[in-house]
Amino acid sequence: MFRLKSLEPFTRHFSGQKFMDMLELNDRGPNTTITVKPDSVDILAPILARYKVAQEGGRILYINFTTVQDYFWLLRAACECLAPCGSKALLYLAAAVSDFYIPSNEMPTHKIQSDGGPPIINLQLVPKLLAPLVNLWVPQAYVVSFKLETDENLLVSKARDALKKYKHKLVIANLLQTRRHKVTFVTIDDSFEISLTRDQTLSGIEIEDIIVSNVVLHHTDFIHCDQY
Amino acid sequence: MFRLKSLEPFTRHFSGQKFMDMLELNDRGPNTTITVKPDSVDILAPILARYKVAQEGGRILYINFTTVQDYFWLLRAACECLAPCGSKALLYLAAAVSDFYIPSNEMPTHKIQSDGGPPIINLQLVPKLLAPLVNLWVPQAYVVSFKLETDENLLVSKARDALKKYKHKLVIANLLQTRRHKVTFVTIDDSFEISLTRDQTLSGIEIEDIIVSNVVLHHTDFIHCDQY
Repeated sequence: MFRLKSLEPFTRHFSGQKFMDMLELNDRGPNTTITVKPDSVDILAPILARYKVAQEGGRILYINFTTVQDYFWLLRAACECLAPCGSKALLYLAAAVSDFYIPSNEMPTHKIQSDGGPPIINLQLVPKLLAPLVNLWVPQAYVVSFKLETDENLLVSKARDALKKYKHKLVIANLLQTRRHKVTFVTIDDSFEISLTRDQTLSGIEIEDIIVSNVVLHHTDFIHCDQY
Repeated sequence: MFRLKSLEPFTRHFSGQKFMDMLELNDRGPNTTITVKPDSVDILAPILARYKVAQEGGRILYINFTTVQDYFWLLRAACECLAPCGSKALLYLAAAVSDFYIPSNEMPTHKIQSDGGPPIINLQLVPKLLAPLVNLWVPQAYVVSFKLETDENLLVSKARDALKKYKHKLVIANLLQTRRHKVTFVTIDDSFEISLTRDQTLSGIEIEDIIVSNVVLHHTDFIHCDQY
């Protein structure tokens, strides 16, 4: 699930313009062809190959939303589909869609006029969906949430507060400043840090690669405990 | 000039995923090629041809921004480059980037915590750049602004107010509800409506095509009057 126009898997490194620049037009009237320039093939081919495997294998489903309300209903519907998978379902909730919002019944009908001076915006808290999600929608699933902070002193304590409150399995905590090379895995009784080495960074490995393989390990353990 | 991640010329109809779906991978090891599928060539070829003409002829320059502050400085710099063109310069200011903003010195340093309850946001008015732009930066240029409203009764009067206040040449006024097929051209002493016919809509003509050709006519007249 992703907000419309946010970065998407596979294509996240390419803007529309970058795509156009990769293409070569071979104008031959009705036999016109368009090919990717040889030097771009090296970059695009492995990504396209992975995309095709995911698409053709039915391994990825894109669900987009625009408003926070859409997100609520789609998330619940997605959970209903995943619930029968029991402990084999993993929910990777990479970020709160929004902490605050304006309910649709408080939205003005007409455009806000700027000549009336600037408006004061009274936001409301977005309901924390993690509570019904863990307790009601997918009670057997392995649920992972994220906690992004800008203040390092709050990081682990806020992550653990979330685990106590929502009773899910894992919080991946990171700091805005260092999120691309360091995260902390926080469970109810443990916490450990994962960071990219200089060599890993130089060879193009991203922190997400390490996060995902660690999450898979934790989830495999969890399924195993659940079965025996 | 465009805000990063907003729709861009030529590629606006294609998401990253649509691009990937158009491509065919011909995996032959070191001789791997990627081609656009024949049925997508029909759609993409004319767009790509126009893109190449614009790029290779140096007829388009993409300047992106993120914050309203970036926009201010880049717009002024762009005006400085255009000022020597005199009346041949046309500025097509398709929308206010934002009516309201939070100045950077009032931004919180740390992430706003949701457990303190929802914040009240005191916005400030974005300075109206049209005033210095018309009077100081490009005083000889043909400046066009837009006026989007949701209330039809305000449309022409608000457009004319803007012309009187900023002393530029043309306001293109539209309503949120009907903007894809109807606009009103408002000058200081005239106003007329342009709308797409059903046939034009069915044949894929967009309102922007009609707007642009009308703007070009107005601008050509303006250059002519300026020279004789």
